[in-house]
Amino acid sequence: MRQAILDLEESRIREVANAGMGRAGVLAFWFGESDEVTPEAVRAAAVASLQAGETFYSHNLGLPELRQAVAGYTSVLHGPVDAERIAITSGGVNALMLAMQALVDAGDEVVAVTPVWPNLTAQPRILGARLSCVALRPRADGAWTLDLDALLAAITPTTRLLVLNAPNNPTGWTLSRTEQQAILARCRATGTWILADEVYERLYYRDDTASGAAPSFLDLAEADDRLAVVQSFSKSFLMTGWRLGWLVMPTQMMGHMGKLIEFNTSCAPVFVQRAAQVALAEADAITPRIVAHLRQCRDTLVPLLQGLPGVRASSAPGGMYAFLRVDGHDDSLALAKRLVREAGLGLAPGVAFGSEAEGWLRWCFASRDLSRLREGAQRLERWLHANRRS
Amino acid sequence: MRQAILDLEESRIREVANAGMGRAGVLAFWFGESDEVTPEAVRAAAVASLQAGETFYSHNLGLPELRQAVAGYTSVLHGPVDAERIAITSGGVNALMLAMQALVDAGDEVVAVTPVWPNLTAQPRILGARLSCVALRPRADGAWTLDLDALLAAITPTTRLLVLNAPNNPTGWTLSRTEQQAILARCRATGTWILADEVYERLYYRDDTASGAAPSFLDLAEADDRLAVVQSFSKSFLMTGWRLGWLVMPTQMMGHMGKLIEFNTSCAPVFVQRAAQVALAEADAITPRIVAHLRQCRDTLVPLLQGLPGVRASSAPGGMYAFLRVDGHDDSLALAKRLVREAGLGLAPGVAFGSEAEGWLRWCFASRDLSRLREGAQRLERWLHANRRS
Repeated sequence: MRQAILDLEESRIREVANAGMGRAGVLAFWFGESDEVTPEAVRAAAVASLQAGETFYSHNLGLPELRQAVAGYTSVLHGPVDAERIAITSGGVNALMLAMQALVDAGDEVVAVTPVWPNLTAQPRILGARLSCVALRPRADGAWTLDLDALLAAITPTTRLLVLNAPNNPTGWTLSRTEQQAILARCRATGTWILADEVYERLYYRDDTASGAAPSFLDLAEADDRLAVVQSFSKSFLMTGWRLGWLVMPTQMMGHMGKLIEFNTSCAPVFVQRAAQVALAEADAITPRIVAHLRQCRDTLVPLLQGLPGVRASSAPGGMYAFLRVDGHDDSLALAKRLVREAGLGLAPGVAFGSEAEGWLRWCFASRDLSRLREGAQRLERWLHANRRS
Repeated sequence: MRQAILDLEESRIREVANAGMGRAGVLAFWFGESDEVTPEAVRAAAVASLQAGETFYSHNLGLPELRQAVAGYTSVLHGPVDAERIAITSGGVNALMLAMQALVDAGDEVVAVTPVWPNLTAQPRILGARLSCVALRPRADGAWTLDLDALLAAITPTTRLLVLNAPNNPTGWTLSRTEQQAILARCRATGTWILADEVYERLYYRDDTASGAAPSFLDLAEADDRLAVVQSFSKSFLMTGWRLGWLVMPTQMMGHMGKLIEFNTSCAPVFVQRAAQVALAEADAITPRIVAHLRQCRDTLVPLLQGLPGVRASSAPGGMYAFLRVDGHDDSLALAKRLVREAGLGLAPGVAFGSEAEGWLRWCFASRDLSRLREGAQRLERWLHANRRS
């Protein structure tokens, strides 16, 4: 087996989860997933498709009617985007991998902003690229910020690709319009591709954009800019397990992307795509309800965390995570394992997302039942009290 | 975009299909897919899973109960295989890509036996490998054979991976047990990995194995040999559009394969895996019926082709294709396009599968209705008659 694959880190999140599985009564907030089932109407569309016998191969780039619906949905949020620029993929992560296969040769330089969910930094390594990371930094209040000058300086004419995930998993950090403008200008100057993972765009709580969604590179860029935007049905439509996402790219990449999809997974199942068509048709009923509930989750959990002694946490503008720091606990993996064992509380260790996040913990607050969040915060409080350092 | 991706050939099969789509009355045999819907009980399992709300992420390597069922199914065909050696993938093509990502660094040498379906040779190119091909050769009667000595000579200590698809798409060529033994011995000596695409193993018509399946490397190899076998639910269970397959590998690769699945597609949908569980449970009812019908398809079509003047075609021992040569027509893409336009007959051009197959045509005989095959042969006969060279 390749050394690059042997060297890939196993998920530290799963390491904690494995330590907790089988333990009765653990409250698990470790994975990035709501505990709510996909809406009934969406599931019904897949059922109808299966019953109608739609079990054959389909177009590499997705059903034309779904590409059209995605283009319409995107255009409402970010201005006109043609269906010719949309490729349907087998999940957001698959969209990222396809874009990287299209753009990154072995030996190429890729810049990533970290901490970030581990898949984004693992993919360039799988492809043999040289990865260089620009670190977000926590402020005293627990919010994470970008050193824009440092990022701009890191992007040079030898940088093939810049990978960004904003709103960011795990920190909740979100790019501002001004930062996006500066990054786009810099990448245009250096000839660098931007790969923007914007799957949390609808989970945005600042109320400062016309669409309600987080600022997107699509709001600024031209159709032929070196830009690939990754989206997913997972977060905005409660469809994690369906494995469906999409890419927005320049039209001239599409024929080549069709080949890459053929050679990776060939196509997404038609019955999954039928469900996605209904999700988009019902988006105005589905997504605002999810976002309103997640905002309630955030506003329930974060103040409770902020009230705990020695805990730093900020109310993130985007995403579905609280990212917190417990004073005196610098080893996040050890702390996460102790919390599982001793408090029945399942969180993800910050180190899973990059060394900059060592000492931090990620708490997914996408919980149908708000009382689970309150109970979790109480468990943390009791554990902190019992383990107070004198 | 990378030059390697720009250089990938677009599908010549799709080029012919595009020329034919929209034309009324074309009999299409160009794609490698049965025209029969997935069995009702299999679809019902997915429906039940969706209705039960199984819409969440699942294990990277697949549901434990499905891995167990696959291991049981494989063990019946090929002797004991542990569930720890099974990874569930998003289709056979995805299994191949994952195995190549695990094994092939940019610059590595990959040997492939061709002609072969284009995905197998495109994947090493995507990963920046150096590809070297060993050609099958047609006999006078239209059957294709392997020059075993040439293949063994091509496998050297610098060969990282040998890729084989047998029973072969498009030629129907199938490896014999003796050939597999020699290849395995050679690869053991050179330290070369074998990636065996055996997705057509059940579509085997020679009746010379105990299981009825084509000879498999799993029949010979040790559990820790450098061997990855790719399988799919597509052909044996009429599940092409579901995108589900599996890999059999040495146990010690499994943790690493779990990482690669996480970083490529994360997991297969649970409701798709539930359908697969039922497919395996009902395999004895489903697969022999499919195979018996395909044998009937083959035995209907091939003798009709053999009766046509200037046509060479052999009754292939495996797969679901007739591979034929029409004397005097050396440009298979041009011939396939003419047949669509002038005869209403949709076949795949041999050149799509490698330069060795230029001049040949692939005819997928997986047709529910045998009279479609007869009508197709008549159309070819009429066209040949009208275009007879004096």
